[in-house]
Amino acid sequence: MKRWHNPNVVSFSHALPDFVSGTRTPRDFLERCLAVIAARDRTVKAFVTLNAAAARKAADAATRRYQAGRPLSPVDGCPVAIKDIIATADMPTQMNCPAFNGWQSGQDAACVAALRSGGAVIIGKTVTTEFAIGYSGPTTNPFDPERTPGGSSSGSAASVGAGMVPVALGTQTQASTLRPASYCGVVGFKPTIGALHTAGIHPLSATCDHLGMLAGTLDDAWRVASHVSLSIGSPGHPFLTGAGTQPPLPRKPRKLIRLYTRGWTEIDSGTEDAFNETIAALQFAGVPIASRDNDPGVARLEAALDAGVDGAIAIVAWEMKWPYEDYIARFGKVIGKRIHGLIDQARKMSPDAYEKLLENRRRVRHLVHETAGGADGYITLAASGPAITGLDYTGSRTFLIYGSWLGLPAFSLPLLQVNSLPLGVQLLGAPGTDGALCATANWLMQKLI
Amino acid sequence: MKRWHNPNVVSFSHALPDFVSGTRTPRDFLERCLAVIAARDRTVKAFVTLNAAAARKAADAATRRYQAGRPLSPVDGCPVAIKDIIATADMPTQMNCPAFNGWQSGQDAACVAALRSGGAVIIGKTVTTEFAIGYSGPTTNPFDPERTPGGSSSGSAASVGAGMVPVALGTQTQASTLRPASYCGVVGFKPTIGALHTAGIHPLSATCDHLGMLAGTLDDAWRVASHVSLSIGSPGHPFLTGAGTQPPLPRKPRKLIRLYTRGWTEIDSGTEDAFNETIAALQFAGVPIASRDNDPGVARLEAALDAGVDGAIAIVAWEMKWPYEDYIARFGKVIGKRIHGLIDQARKMSPDAYEKLLENRRRVRHLVHETAGGADGYITLAASGPAITGLDYTGSRTFLIYGSWLGLPAFSLPLLQVNSLPLGVQLLGAPGTDGALCATANWLMQKLI
Repeated sequence: MKRWHNPNVVSFSHALPDFVSGTRTPRDFLERCLAVIAARDRTVKAFVTLNAAAARKAADAATRRYQAGRPLSPVDGCPVAIKDIIATADMPTQMNCPAFNGWQSGQDAACVAALRSGGAVIIGKTVTTEFAIGYSGPTTNPFDPERTPGGSSSGSAASVGAGMVPVALGTQTQASTLRPASYCGVVGFKPTIGALHTAGIHPLSATCDHLGMLAGTLDDAWRVASHVSLSIGSPGHPFLTGAGTQPPLPRKPRKLIRLYTRGWTEIDSGTEDAFNETIAALQFAGVPIASRDNDPGVARLEAALDAGVDGAIAIVAWEMKWPYEDYIARFGKVIGKRIHGLIDQARKMSPDAYEKLLENRRRVRHLVHETAGGADGYITLAASGPAITGLDYTGSRTFLIYGSWLGLPAFSLPLLQVNSLPLGVQLLGAPGTDGALCATANWLMQKLI
Repeated sequence: MKRWHNPNVVSFSHALPDFVSGTRTPRDFLERCLAVIAARDRTVKAFVTLNAAAARKAADAATRRYQAGRPLSPVDGCPVAIKDIIATADMPTQMNCPAFNGWQSGQDAACVAALRSGGAVIIGKTVTTEFAIGYSGPTTNPFDPERTPGGSSSGSAASVGAGMVPVALGTQTQASTLRPASYCGVVGFKPTIGALHTAGIHPLSATCDHLGMLAGTLDDAWRVASHVSLSIGSPGHPFLTGAGTQPPLPRKPRKLIRLYTRGWTEIDSGTEDAFNETIAALQFAGVPIASRDNDPGVARLEAALDAGVDGAIAIVAWEMKWPYEDYIARFGKVIGKRIHGLIDQARKMSPDAYEKLLENRRRVRHLVHETAGGADGYITLAASGPAITGLDYTGSRTFLIYGSWLGLPAFSLPLLQVNSLPLGVQLLGAPGTDGALCATANWLMQKLI
């Protein structure tokens, strides 16, 4: 197996001991980030707004706290970039829609408030596709400017992939955190639906919208997610399981379940070989792999996943009625065609049809739990291949929509290399198993070489 | 039993046949509302913003649709007042907090968008207590200007009680729809938690915040709620059960369960007598009444309710961390003392404590379902007595907090009269039984004289 290596990665967790010992400061760390942005963002175009002055002020404050031996939280001094559908008090939130040019929310989203009050350094806003679902933006792939970075968290993934920041916040409603993570060679982490507070994130579909992490390292992804969870919680939901400063220690999975699903029809042989080598490496390391080939329960689950997944888009369409019906009425053709199409789809749906979709989702979610018994997660690809050429199309969602639809915790791990480009391995778990899944992810990252 | 009669009530449902036949128009109906506002709002002070020009335009459009025989929806032409924590695109949303003076959301809340797209006439914004939980506003009780209208939906309840509008939107996190409904002699309806879309309502506590209806008649309350539910839904939740144009037909309850709970220690003898007469009238009409006196299951439920209810406030406090920690940081003492106190309480809570509160809530909710078996609802008071004198204190929450905490569907029915002032009878049901509960409420309103 040819493992991907990202030469750009910056890690806050790795720098932290230096902040504590005083050999380096959060301000030094930030300056390195700003230098990479200055050097590369003309090509990568990850940022739509940069607030270097506020970031320097925040980094200096963090520096003073470390010097006094009193950091505020496990993310104190950590530079974080924010997807431009997530509200920030000090920068516009523009959704990559001309109707929102310069729009100011007036306040931080819950996740941003949680990070800021923990001392994190909010560095800027990153390019999103239109409302995280429509037209793509100008961002390019950090490893090939002719290729898409993936979407919709395009700028967040590209900024991390290019080494501009250790962590960026993204969102995922269908594929928007893990797909760009896969294409940009970074860790993507989308916790269980509801595990992280989503207030202040511009909505698409309340039951599918997730806050996601894009990070150079698993440590930083978990660190930021767990801080957001523990400091502010998420109304009505348990906290991120196993949350704490450090990611759960690597744990060898007892068994993994390989998922084929519909995405498998889309891949090329290079991609298939790379993934099969991973599976072989896992088996060589003594991890049993179940799949539809040797387990009828898995075959049943895959059938339910593939049969139900079209309903996932219908759920998103229905839940988009507010506010997109209103936007279409007010802004007309300024709103992209895909959004018009989804609202048309919603208008043709009956309340009864929506309720049936919710019921089926509950049933399939239960099946995911049931089938996972004895295994420590599901393993598949995070995308149908490495980043494709062109910037208009952000790539296939097929491998990722299941996890978004069902709200499963999911990681994209930058393990594979195909045609000298990164490709993610996707790990999925039953809802609420985030901590255990992260322990498995950690093991894969450390042992699978 | 001395039944309350509100001489001011205006009913959209009753006027509707005239709109259809052409003997009266939505514009005529609106003008009557505006005339009452002009005559009475100097004393009642229900409105913080009135948009008569936009309302007239909307009423004229509705008039044309009825004349063409093509009304848009069951609420076409219905004047609705909106509590000033609910976002409106054409009026400021000010939360009764000086930091939000003149603040414009830029868009309609989901419920307002649903009403507006159905042709409803959005007439103005009504006074709320500060963020629906802090300092009270200037509104007076429509039956005695020396008395409170209740809170936090003060202006919404008072505007309906004074006959200024047939329906107003309120919210309830602890007691804020049913308490002012009781004090102002109007119907209050707070559906099951999640049944109505709450996006665009300024948040207090996402798992306790309900959209509520204040209306002169049960018909109008149900009509508006069912329209909001059916036209836009609520992400992840079933629609209002039995939703449709008309409220569910009156149905004599098989049995009702009388709840005492902690509120009973607060009432005076006039209030107690009035309620006891209601119970006697129900028994006379052949409705069996269960209570802790004759059913140990009810005693167990009451014990669980009273033991758990302090946790209800702790849940609200924790969930207020966002955005109120941020508001306190930014606005300091502009934010009221009660909010400071709740945030202080939240800061002392651990994630573990919050999870335990959620777990207990699930347990008690289950008990409500279990105990309700065979009965068609719980009956108790909506307040510890009629509206109290003075405007600073909006009254006790004790009778109402159970329903808000557990997210139970609840009505306050303006049936009782104590000292020539209105007092509500509260009906509560198990979550999801809104339609059946409304049928019971309808029976009580029509048969209990």
